[in-house]
Amino acid sequence: MNLHQSQQTIVIKLGGGEGVNMVPLLEELPSLLARDFRVVLVHGASAAANALADQAGLDRRQIQSPSGHLSRYTYPEMLEIFVAAAAGQVNKSLAADLQTRNVNAVGISGVDGRLLVAERKRAIRAVENGRQRVIRDDYSGKIRQANVQVLRVLLDAGFTPVVAPLALGTRGERLNVDGDRAAATIAAALGADALIILSNVPGLLADFPDANSLIRSVTPQTLDVARTAAQGRMKRKVLAAEEALTGGVPRAILADSRRTNPVSAALSGAGTVFSKQ
Amino acid sequence: MNLHQSQQTIVIKLGGGEGVNMVPLLEELPSLLARDFRVVLVHGASAAANALADQAGLDRRQIQSPSGHLSRYTYPEMLEIFVAAAAGQVNKSLAADLQTRNVNAVGISGVDGRLLVAERKRAIRAVENGRQRVIRDDYSGKIRQANVQVLRVLLDAGFTPVVAPLALGTRGERLNVDGDRAAATIAAALGADALIILSNVPGLLADFPDANSLIRSVTPQTLDVARTAAQGRMKRKVLAAEEALTGGVPRAILADSRRTNPVSAALSGAGTVFSKQ
Repeated sequence: MNLHQSQQTIVIKLGGGEGVNMVPLLEELPSLLARDFRVVLVHGASAAANALADQAGLDRRQIQSPSGHLSRYTYPEMLEIFVAAAAGQVNKSLAADLQTRNVNAVGISGVDGRLLVAERKRAIRAVENGRQRVIRDDYSGKIRQANVQVLRVLLDAGFTPVVAPLALGTRGERLNVDGDRAAATIAAALGADALIILSNVPGLLADFPDANSLIRSVTPQTLDVARTAAQGRMKRKVLAAEEALTGGVPRAILADSRRTNPVSAALSGAGTVFSKQ
Repeated sequence: MNLHQSQQTIVIKLGGGEGVNMVPLLEELPSLLARDFRVVLVHGASAAANALADQAGLDRRQIQSPSGHLSRYTYPEMLEIFVAAAAGQVNKSLAADLQTRNVNAVGISGVDGRLLVAERKRAIRAVENGRQRVIRDDYSGKIRQANVQVLRVLLDAGFTPVVAPLALGTRGERLNVDGDRAAATIAAALGADALIILSNVPGLLADFPDANSLIRSVTPQTLDVARTAAQGRMKRKVLAAEEALTGGVPRAILADSRRTNPVSAALSGAGTVFSKQ
């Protein structure tokens, strides 16, 4: 029996980049729970991982794909730093902060309970100084499967799960995975009512960085417009929104982390709302 | 209704110091679960925290108490490193390893679900170069309360919880807590059938490091002998064993992490068994 049929489940992705203000979401969360939402919070960790990598003296190289896409080069030593920052520092800092707000948070990662199982990218084509080479020691992964039982069990018991963007590799490795796509996969597997991706922009802008060019709604008919408008990191967020919809999530919303009550605002139509119609 | 009355619950503390071999325990865990044990694994992180602190260029000072007791000086930057190593690196490495052995591990810390609530030591008297001073920026804590609901929920659903030695401070801080005492508090609050503390010694030795001087059994009548025999780190393990017994755990066993099937061996009487009679 599902005791929670009347409750809405929302998956919130909070960016971990420079400039993302986590406070408005943390301040809003208690009121969301009081309104009977079931919330899963998925977080990023890039700024914290960068800071710890610098402190540890690691070389922070990016991998540039032949199509121009940039991503973190997660060589073995960098993986250790990423795991430390994501599942340690950021995850426990969010969990402790939420506890002070009487949100009974439980921080886990995609490794735990096999929540996210991913395939390690064993050979990545990269462009360096204009030449292509193949990188074979990267520990990032492409998500293949989500096992959300651990989230259901925690939600049913009244906990608020906080998820770090790691996955379990098919060979038992810990892998760095994209937080936006992790959140989308989780939202789909949970049958969530909405996926909300918060970062330090108002949403998808037709003419970046002009905030007045916000695209308010994206449907299958206008998806091409959205894909074309998305620049840089926004590309993955648009992809994540698409994946959530394909997985059956009715709404995926790209919205601003910096405003008061960011989730309520997003659910009321602020930001860019992806839906089937 | 308790569906698990016939199942034994054991809390295992696996040391995180240099020289502790984690492999025998990890190899044994699947067979323990197959024998219907419910297991909570609490781990240490000192070697990993030391390595990460060195990598990050932090000064690893110890605090020496007036009574000669040594502990990690967890100043704010060191706390970040400790959290990263304990809840990030070690916790997720254990969870991923167990997953490859078909143990459905879920790694959390004492912060999560308010599992361990502790009081920060706001003023610590320390001896330095023969002089006493007071340290006020240390983020270690004394455990005051355990809320084991998160463990029960995970155990009831068939997961194996893996717990990093952090606690939530009464003011929302993350705190470094002693793993042995954390395990003892958890064992008592869970009503566990046994606490097993594994490290790289055969147990409590009357004449350290002579392995032939193993003390096989400690009862209330012989507790003074045990306290006197305990040197260095063993002092806290003896204290943890005492705390577990005081909290109602029938047996607390200090045993060797390095041998095959360390838990079965401990339960069969290898190591030092603390009991009420």
